[in-house]
Amino acid sequence: MKLKQLVMKRYATKEFDGKVIPQDKVNELFELIRMAPTSFNIQPWKVKVVTDKMTKEKLFPVSWNQKQITTCSHLLVFCADNDILGLVDKLEKEMIAAGASPESIKGYVQMMRDFAKGLTPDQALVWAQKQVYIALENAMLGATALGFDSCPMEGFNSAEYHKILKLPKNLVASVLCPIGYAADKPLPKLRFKKEDLFF
Amino acid sequence: MKLKQLVMKRYATKEFDGKVIPQDKVNELFELIRMAPTSFNIQPWKVKVVTDKMTKEKLFPVSWNQKQITTCSHLLVFCADNDILGLVDKLEKEMIAAGASPESIKGYVQMMRDFAKGLTPDQALVWAQKQVYIALENAMLGATALGFDSCPMEGFNSAEYHKILKLPKNLVASVLCPIGYAADKPLPKLRFKKEDLFF
Repeated sequence: MKLKQLVMKRYATKEFDGKVIPQDKVNELFELIRMAPTSFNIQPWKVKVVTDKMTKEKLFPVSWNQKQITTCSHLLVFCADNDILGLVDKLEKEMIAAGASPESIKGYVQMMRDFAKGLTPDQALVWAQKQVYIALENAMLGATALGFDSCPMEGFNSAEYHKILKLPKNLVASVLCPIGYAADKPLPKLRFKKEDLFF
Repeated sequence: MKLKQLVMKRYATKEFDGKVIPQDKVNELFELIRMAPTSFNIQPWKVKVVTDKMTKEKLFPVSWNQKQITTCSHLLVFCADNDILGLVDKLEKEMIAAGASPESIKGYVQMMRDFAKGLTPDQALVWAQKQVYIALENAMLGATALGFDSCPMEGFNSAEYHKILKLPKNLVASVLCPIGYAADKPLPKLRFKKEDLFF
């Protein structure tokens, strides 16, 4: 499908039919998400993948009882990783492992470190969360491209997710994207006029 | 092109060749951006489109002298719109104009108003900015789909952009996406391993 068709076909699915997406399709989706761009290529995000019924049921009440949580195939919990300096170290190592000479990337790595050091913890989190939303769009478009459905969701208690999923300290559950096969129908798309958005 | 190919082909162009993108292609891109999803469908963003040389040259020094600013065809300045309550009013009117009965959307509109009222000005801005990053990904993938190039850019002085572009009070320049035809070549994509990102 062309991008235009994907963009038009995608919609926020309110209920899934419970059918499980084959693992090879899920892996294809993960690859589309993994390749999303991030600022400096720091990739300050991770995705906790929830498939078991019991965990979904625990998450349901801290997600405003929204049915997508319990009816989806896979619940993707997009987490911002606020350990930016740790990620810069990791990226530096991987750039060198991929063939870059330490000398040639020194300036770039220093720029990233200075950037990371200049952020307050709150700013680091917000910055990481913005990058998450780019990857989220790949998840949504990717689901449509691969023949299933998705729903972006901000309505959940991030602190409760942290506890239930036993997330490490550096991760903050930031936005959800349950995926599965829709059990509902899309409404017509309503958007503000072009003249109201572009000027 | 398939989504996978778009995702793999897109890269952050460091320099454009100055050629102007035909207006019909630009309009197609705007449509892809316009259709991006946002939380509650509130669409808290606007894009200032800069094409004239003189404005680009004014923006160049407040964009860390990055060549994309002066060599691109169109500079898309993605702005977060922090007047969330105003947008909810607008959306309510448009939903009714599109055929919804005021009664049927009353609960939904109230939920949006309560959400908006619960945000501090800082929280409203951050929330709007996150939505902007979803639209930004449509811009990047859309550019590749339509045969040109793009570069997401956070390195600029938002307050100076506000002055130079005479932006209204409710808009905050949040991320840039210059578009045009690349005068450079992509480097190989480097990403963290799947096991490091999905767990």
